[in-house]
Amino acid sequence: MSLPFPPDISTLMTATDPVANLQTLIRCPSVTPAEGGALAALEAMLSPLGFKVDRVKATEAGTPDIENLYARLGSDGPHLMFAGHTDVVPVGDEAAWTHPPFAAEISGGELFGRGAVDMKGGIACFVAAVSRYLERHANPKGSVSLLITGDEEGPAINGTIKLLQWAAERGERWDACLVGEPTNPDTLGDMIKVGRRGSLSGRLTVHGVQGHAAYPHLADNPVRGMLQLTSALMDPPFDNGTEDFQPSNLEVTTIDVGNPATNVIPAKATASFNIRFNDTWTVDTLQAEILRRLEAAARNGALRTGREAVRYDIAWADRPSHVFLTRNNALIASLSSAIESVAGKTPKLSTTGGTSDARFIKDYCAVVEFGLVGQTMHMVDERVAVSDLETLTRIYETFIERWFANAGA
Amino acid sequence: MSLPFPPDISTLMTATDPVANLQTLIRCPSVTPAEGGALAALEAMLSPLGFKVDRVKATEAGTPDIENLYARLGSDGPHLMFAGHTDVVPVGDEAAWTHPPFAAEISGGELFGRGAVDMKGGIACFVAAVSRYLERHANPKGSVSLLITGDEEGPAINGTIKLLQWAAERGERWDACLVGEPTNPDTLGDMIKVGRRGSLSGRLTVHGVQGHAAYPHLADNPVRGMLQLTSALMDPPFDNGTEDFQPSNLEVTTIDVGNPATNVIPAKATASFNIRFNDTWTVDTLQAEILRRLEAAARNGALRTGREAVRYDIAWADRPSHVFLTRNNALIASLSSAIESVAGKTPKLSTTGGTSDARFIKDYCAVVEFGLVGQTMHMVDERVAVSDLETLTRIYETFIERWFANAGA
Ligand SMILES: [Zn+2]
Ligand SMILES: [Zn+2]
Repeated sequence: MSLPFPPDISTLMTATDPVANLQTLIRCPSVTPAEGGALAALEAMLSPLGFKVDRVKATEAGTPDIENLYARLGSDGPHLMFAGHTDVVPVGDEAAWTHPPFAAEISGGELFGRGAVDMKGGIACFVAAVSRYLERHANPKGSVSLLITGDEEGPAINGTIKLLQWAAERGERWDACLVGEPTNPDTLGDMIKVGRRGSLSGRLTVHGVQGHAAYPHLADNPVRGMLQLTSALMDPPFDNGTEDFQPSNLEVTTIDVGNPATNVIPAKATASFNIRFNDTWTVDTLQAEILRRLEAAARNGALRTGREAVRYDIAWADRPSHVFLTRNNALIASLSSAIESVAGKTPKLSTTGGTSDARFIKDYCAVVEFGLVGQTMHMVDERVAVSDLETLTRIYETFIERWFANAGA
Repeated sequence: MSLPFPPDISTLMTATDPVANLQTLIRCPSVTPAEGGALAALEAMLSPLGFKVDRVKATEAGTPDIENLYARLGSDGPHLMFAGHTDVVPVGDEAAWTHPPFAAEISGGELFGRGAVDMKGGIACFVAAVSRYLERHANPKGSVSLLITGDEEGPAINGTIKLLQWAAERGERWDACLVGEPTNPDTLGDMIKVGRRGSLSGRLTVHGVQGHAAYPHLADNPVRGMLQLTSALMDPPFDNGTEDFQPSNLEVTTIDVGNPATNVIPAKATASFNIRFNDTWTVDTLQAEILRRLEAAARNGALRTGREAVRYDIAWADRPSHVFLTRNNALIASLSSAIESVAGKTPKLSTTGGTSDARFIKDYCAVVEFGLVGQTMHMVDERVAVSDLETLTRIYETFIERWFANAGA
């Protein structure tokens, strides 16, 4: 890592404090898709440290324009990326907050504000960690980058995907990535995420024949067929889980008919489902299994009722999330040992939970996720223990140190 | 039957023609709740025949005011009632009609118009039949009444129920009733309805716990419980039918969740169902059976999933229709033999199909239903064969004759 110009010490001293960094970021009201000044503030923190900062605007018809940021310090390998987002979810019932959601007030040892844990806090800590690392390593080898989007909580169309493409087209290559999402269920150091289940959604329509409820033989109630097909989707389980993943799970998230007349048999029923799947499956094999179950249930329904097979069609949602599992031992070991050293506990390596932008990054380099405690994310009174900010900063700094050592920098 | 005053022969000659009667009635646009002149026209036909005619307006907060008509000829027993309705369903796509729906045009031997078979046609034939009967019986014994509502196709709140109460409070008692609804599936004389299944509707709500689709263990998907409960309602069959009735049948007419987010497990699912039930059940025993099935399914769901029992509640719709079966042999025999004599065929005694106002009348006297061929009812180009009008008039006249003879008039 070579610094393009000597860092401004006074600025460095500010950026080494994760609490101050986080207060600055929270006070920027960056509810998706608004930039809210958050990326400008981040640029103001990173530039004095020697980062080359690019603000990258992404646009797509039908979606709001989004501002993103890519910052790199150094030009050599090995190259470590930190990824995250400055956008936040809406504040919800603002009157219900104990402290205003964009005031970043500290009370009882906790810092309150939207984004405190998801995930301006993670960014604030990483910036502080890099600042401290640079104080101790005058001429480090290798490169550190921050890939920060303003579209993680939104449709994620103009965010990490496009920012990665933009950087890759400019020749950027990375060796490993740490995503700073809040991964800890209860206390800092509980859990590293080393993979994510995939996610696949579909919409099922069952066609019947409308008619009067008193003359069911002249009609064909699509609700009956819908129950058969959705039951077949839910049972039996798709698998029992793997060494690394919990069992795949399908939820029927809605069934709708919209028939207001109790004496009328409706013509159509629709349902949506979402399946979170493990590495037993790919998107392709899973779609094939779902179609097989639907076909069998549709024919079986016909055998039982003496009617024709259930008539249905299925539409797959765009952009399924592919399952992934990180198998980069050096990356996992560097992070795990840093947590052990600083927090005194051995983190669980987990693949549970929802998707994150790691699903996009894994196509470019090995990726793990570790950040703050997620309990208050997306809720009223989102907040972080001030002591956790210092602990996470020290974990990140130790991780940077060990990762570069492991990577031979 | 004693006439209060000598009938006007010139009017009688008109009223003896069911085609003219029907054209007059169809030209009154009496779409529920509008009277449309139809009851006034009927009064103008009946008064000259000697009927004492009462126009009875019924009102209830939250429903449209409805005009009804009760007409009685004679003051002694035995007392035969003819029941029906002059209100009609909307015309639907008026441009799709071959002849205007209120023009009563005759083309190719068929009379076109809304209400032609359901059931201005039946009323027109009965008025013609009574007219002819009076021409042949100068001083008949007994009484004939017409109980005609303008609220059969609507909510039926201000119609037959209230008209029956109104008449009963004035001391009216009946020995038998013929309802003139279109009962024949294909040809005139196919079918008498001698009973009706009951109808019971309910609304089921299943309560879950909202959550993220990636964390199903923190949520409780009500769709799963809804599938268990509705499956238990549909299977096994409630019964195999009885000597007089087809099997009871339950249809789930709608299931609704209304959850637009595929990554969210919803909090609530609702469903409506309607059951048409035979004389195996009463409303009370059927509700008990449904509750028993729901309770068993709710607990069974809990055993299988390891979760608490499915949480649900049920609301019964107002005004269930009670099942009934007419066992008055003299009434059925008089009608059946009249059909045999005039149309040359033996009608099937049926209890199939939807409910009718006979469900209210059966609390006052024995009731059967017989009218025109129902194929075009409620459809565009509703129409009746002109020859059927003459045949039905002759059946009704023969029936009146035989019923009074059987009843010892
Ligand atoms: Zn986040
Ligand atoms: Zn009718």
